Amino acid sequence: MGLWMPLVAGVVAMIFVLYLVIWIKKKSPGSDRMKSISMAIQEGAKAFLFREYKTVFLVVLVIAVPISFTSLGWHTGVSFAFGALVSALAGYLGMRIATQSNARTTHAAQTGLNKALGVAISGGAVMGLSVVGLALLGLVAVIFAFARSGITPDNAMVINGYAMGASLMALFARSGGGIFTKGADMGADLVGKVEAGIPEDDPRNPAVIADNVGDNVGDVAGLGSDLLESYVESIIASMAIAATFATLVTPNAALISSKLIFLPIYVASAGVIASILGVAFIRILGRFNPQSALLGGTYISAGLTALASYLIVNSLGIEFASYSKLGPFWAILSGLISGIIVGLTSEYFTSSKYGPVRALAHSAQSGPAISVTNGMAVGMRSTALPVLMLAAAVLVAHQMAGMYGVAMAAVGMLATTGMVVAVDSYGPIADNAGGIAEMAGLPPEVRKITDHLDSVGNTTAAIGKGFAIGSAALAAIGLLSAYMKISHVEAAKLSLTEPKVVAGLLIGGMLPYLFSSMLFKAVAKSAFQLIEEVRRQFREIPGLMEGTAMPDSATCVDISTKGALRGMMLPGLLAVLVPVAVGFTMGPVVLSGVLVGAIVSGVMLGIQTANSGGAMDNAKKWIEEGNLGGKGSDTHKAAVVGDTVGDPLKDTVGPSINILIKLMSVISLVLAPLFMR
Amino acid sequence: MGLWMPLVAGVVAMIFVLYLVIWIKKKSPGSDRMKSISMAIQEGAKAFLFREYKTVFLVVLVIAVPISFTSLGWHTGVSFAFGALVSALAGYLGMRIATQSNARTTHAAQTGLNKALGVAISGGAVMGLSVVGLALLGLVAVIFAFARSGITPDNAMVINGYAMGASLMALFARSGGGIFTKGADMGADLVGKVEAGIPEDDPRNPAVIADNVGDNVGDVAGLGSDLLESYVESIIASMAIAATFATLVTPNAALISSKLIFLPIYVASAGVIASILGVAFIRILGRFNPQSALLGGTYISAGLTALASYLIVNSLGIEFASYSKLGPFWAILSGLISGIIVGLTSEYFTSSKYGPVRALAHSAQSGPAISVTNGMAVGMRSTALPVLMLAAAVLVAHQMAGMYGVAMAAVGMLATTGMVVAVDSYGPIADNAGGIAEMAGLPPEVRKITDHLDSVGNTTAAIGKGFAIGSAALAAIGLLSAYMKISHVEAAKLSLTEPKVVAGLLIGGMLPYLFSSMLFKAVAKSAFQLIEEVRRQFREIPGLMEGTAMPDSATCVDISTKGALRGMMLPGLLAVLVPVAVGFTMGPVVLSGVLVGAIVSGVMLGIQTANSGGAMDNAKKWIEEGNLGGKGSDTHKAAVVGDTVGDPLKDTVGPSINILIKLMSVISLVLAPLFMR
Repeated sequence: MGLWMPLVAGVVAMIFVLYLVIWIKKKSPGSDRMKSISMAIQEGAKAFLFREYKTVFLVVLVIAVPISFTSLGWHTGVSFAFGALVSALAGYLGMRIATQSNARTTHAAQTGLNKALGVAISGGAVMGLSVVGLALLGLVAVIFAFARSGITPDNAMVINGYAMGASLMALFARSGGGIFTKGADMGADLVGKVEAGIPEDDPRNPAVIADNVGDNVGDVAGLGSDLLESYVESIIASMAIAATFATLVTPNAALISSKLIFLPIYVASAGVIASILGVAFIRILGRFNPQSALLGGTYISAGLTALASYLIVNSLGIEFASYSKLGPFWAILSGLISGIIVGLTSEYFTSSKYGPVRALAHSAQSGPAISVTNGMAVGMRSTALPVLMLAAAVLVAHQMAGMYGVAMAAVGMLATTGMVVAVDSYGPIADNAGGIAEMAGLPPEVRKITDHLDSVGNTTAAIGKGFAIGSAALAAIGLLSAYMKISHVEAAKLSLTEPKVVAGLLIGGMLPYLFSSMLFKAVAKSAFQLIEEVRRQFREIPGLMEGTAMPDSATCVDISTKGALRGMMLPGLLAVLVPVAVGFTMGPVVLSGVLVGAIVSGVMLGIQTANSGGAMDNAKKWIEEGNLGGKGSDTHKAAVVGDTVGDPLKDTVGPSINILIKLMSVISLVLAPLFMR
Repeated sequence: MGLWMPLVAGVVAMIFVLYLVIWIKKKSPGSDRMKSISMAIQEGAKAFLFREYKTVFLVVLVIAVPISFTSLGWHTGVSFAFGALVSALAGYLGMRIATQSNARTTHAAQTGLNKALGVAISGGAVMGLSVVGLALLGLVAVIFAFARSGITPDNAMVINGYAMGASLMALFARSGGGIFTKGADMGADLVGKVEAGIPEDDPRNPAVIADNVGDNVGDVAGLGSDLLESYVESIIASMAIAATFATLVTPNAALISSKLIFLPIYVASAGVIASILGVAFIRILGRFNPQSALLGGTYISAGLTALASYLIVNSLGIEFASYSKLGPFWAILSGLISGIIVGLTSEYFTSSKYGPVRALAHSAQSGPAISVTNGMAVGMRSTALPVLMLAAAVLVAHQMAGMYGVAMAAVGMLATTGMVVAVDSYGPIADNAGGIAEMAGLPPEVRKITDHLDSVGNTTAAIGKGFAIGSAALAAIGLLSAYMKISHVEAAKLSLTEPKVVAGLLIGGMLPYLFSSMLFKAVAKSAFQLIEEVRRQFREIPGLMEGTAMPDSATCVDISTKGALRGMMLPGLLAVLVPVAVGFTMGPVVLSGVLVGAIVSGVMLGIQTANSGGAMDNAKKWIEEGNLGGKGSDTHKAAVVGDTVGDPLKDTVGPSINILIKLMSVISLVLAPLFMR
């Protein structure tokens, strides 16, 4: 059995996580004031997560039970619930440590940049390695429990169920977390900064703790569950396709099939080890130059993964169909490279080091409307290269190893997930650390160090978001390939000349828009309720504005939590019910169109929203650094409007679309046997 | 030959146009001040149009000459150039009369609402009926010149060339006009209203004339050429598909084919007569209730067209393949009905009479950012129903009459184009009339009447925009069906299981975004240059602010013209070159994917931008009517930001996307024989 390798990789990852946790816990969380702020964030995040999980597991139950009574069987139901559980566990663990790392980062910043970076990246690495470690271990467990004697087309849906569970969890984590974080952020800013005229992260603002909680539940737990899902799905899509090869009447079909089934797990295992080495590199070399260290670590992980993939593919020596022995390697490489380019494109369009953001900042001189318009335009322009890269990856991978190759390209892109999530989760920790420094009234030089950490984190976060949508697209295409392979619809019926396909494409293309509008509405509603509450507190709590009384932060966290839980239901239902309804009523042909249409329109909208938001955020920050009049100027005010529009785009809508397209695809894959009847 | 019917319909339409022109010319254009303002607008519009046409015909030449030397032949080259000419002619005629109707509408408004409505709708009807009249006559001429003995798959490209010419013209008219109008509008507003604090349409603002010119070149000439294109394309797509039936080895194949070829022209001819009757109805009954008259006229045209289509289809008695005798009628009807529903959905989401705009206005109370965010969300939500309607029309039409039915559904939707354009062009005339009233210093009760006309026009404009994108989608799908039919690619190769198709879909889906970003950039640049000029004039012309000196309006018009001509080149090149480049280098399979991808993502973006912009515009106007604090309140300021963001969305980006998807499809259709080799 080939389960040893992922088992070892998963266990090593979790041991490294344990080491990091112990290391972090040993660090001092600073003064009592800092501890109490950090504790409030921890409590808020924990409370939100528990309530979110409760809701999600109710939904899981509602889905798992009927599934168990269909021909998919109780195995599928159990592995579905298990997938959700693993994702929840990774999210909880990662966020728990992230929220404990924030004050410790602030404290470390008092003694210098390097130490602070070390704490923040270690906190992020816990999330990153938990995601890949637990995902692999969970997969091993499912295979061991239900498919010990081999994965075949007949039991593939059990494995697929695991991915579907992870996907459902991700949907709620991303959209719930996204609504929470942006509702709280907008609420805090609009009353605090705009109406009351107090600085960001001012301790007098009752919504500041909620805002900080939001960073964690959205950008740490949400991103983690998003990439955990893509990670698992790319693997299971490759497996599902490989499993169909066993039935071919070629010599050694069964052997080849089984080798191809395990290849994605091997590559993923190698990626885990490469990610651990990358994190170690950053922790050691980060003291010299944080930005270079973070990028260097990412490249090292990618390079090592590529090397290991070559060795693995070469040693397996699989020749299937007309593809060369190294075919799968080239497929993996095409995914890996296009992932990097997609990430770098995001950096180019969202970092204030480059032209687009600078030009955007300048355009804010003509007022808020032009600023928003240009922000949209930057995001739109940024779709071109990533999409060409995705298209190229699909074509190259297919040329090299067929449909299987397309799924393996996704595996290649996602092999370094551990590293990507680590670097990405570092951002909110640095952000929180800055907030704590402000709230605890630490000297400005500490805030300067945390700001520096934060600005590095902004760039990595943009890369992470670009990577997340790119990988989601490729993972979804992988799932789709598996779905079409399994649903046994003749290729000709899925032709663009078929009106059912065209109708499906149109309907599918509309879904990301409808879904996004629901999320927008939920954010606005949640922000509105928070604004009312903050206004009330400023009005009714005597001495609050003077700084002699404490705000009631807990009520704000509670309002954001309720807003997020309420707001995530409708879009969640849409994502779950549409594939089921279309599949059962209109059949697999229309459904294929719907899935592809949702990918086509969702990828564009996802990239555009993520990069528009990122660019507007950093244009504002660049102005705040003292350019074009700096803070308080009219240009800055215009840029702030742009940033506020961009925030829900990049942190709620964009990331949630990733899940929408993946979840619909994985549901279709799991239920495919039922649609055929 | 079946050319008598369109000939008669076209000639009747042009006679009615002549009658309307004479009738309008007889009306008084008012005082000298009004005349001089109207003259400035006329001059500006004419100057822009001539320079635009010069540029476009250079491009036409660059394309027509090489085409003539390919296997497509010089017939195709000539009919291509002729198509562009016909569109230019219609645009010129319509706009000339529209700009002469504005002051006459203002003058009539001094004696009452009914008279003003009569002039404005007559002006609009000149555009509407010129579009359909000239389009039909041009088509008759092309068929008579080059396909007198019958349209076959071997000479269909000549007819298709005519549509391609109309499409190229439309591209530049829409994008050039769109850049002009929004650059001028934003430039005028941002300096005039925001910086100098003078009212809209104030005669001291040097950019006001440019703004009024923009309304005409964008909303009259641009819209007219857009719908002329859709109109012609829906007809020729049906013809091209019908022509392929002649080669089938069934009894009477040639006869059936020739009847099916002429059916779209018959239906279109009936639609022209129905539109004339609809316009007459409005002119007679408009005195009682303008809003109801406009809607009533639209319904009457649609009803008459449906009735006539039934009679025509029934009398032709065509039975082809397995479809029933009335099959084509049901296809036509499905298009007609879905067009109406698409229009009504636009009205619901963009009129201040209904919930969405009211809610949007309320959300402006939370500031500009929330206002913009919710405006986006409204547009996104509004995509759902129109897309479902389009999908339903495609499915029903295909069920009833196959691929031919899908193209005929587009014909059905577009049969009432004359009426739609008439009602839509009425809007800018009423808008201009208001501007002239303001600039000429007429008493407020006149302005009140023109404002009422304008507000009615806003609703009809929103319906027109929704209709334009819906019909563009259906026309493009019709063209696409014809293209796939002609390019003889096996259906299985166009399957969603083919990575080439998926790659094409992704690339195609990205194009509307890239295209839109270019337009945004052009608008911002043009607005910026105008802002600089207006600021300069306020600074350097002594007595301008005091009203003792006249502004230099001509320079502003010139700046907007140059900005539009420069700005339209890059997006134009993209639209023309992509299908050519993809077709020749990657072949017809990838190209099919690109076309479908562009339609799927373009339709969503088109509907969203049009309705977001419309909703934000009317939310602002509703506040200006005195709600939520009225003009000058913070809520109003927030809504103004939303409106300014929405303006280029609805008037530049959205409408241009219509053309992008159609132009790429028609180019592919014309060049299909070359891609196959």
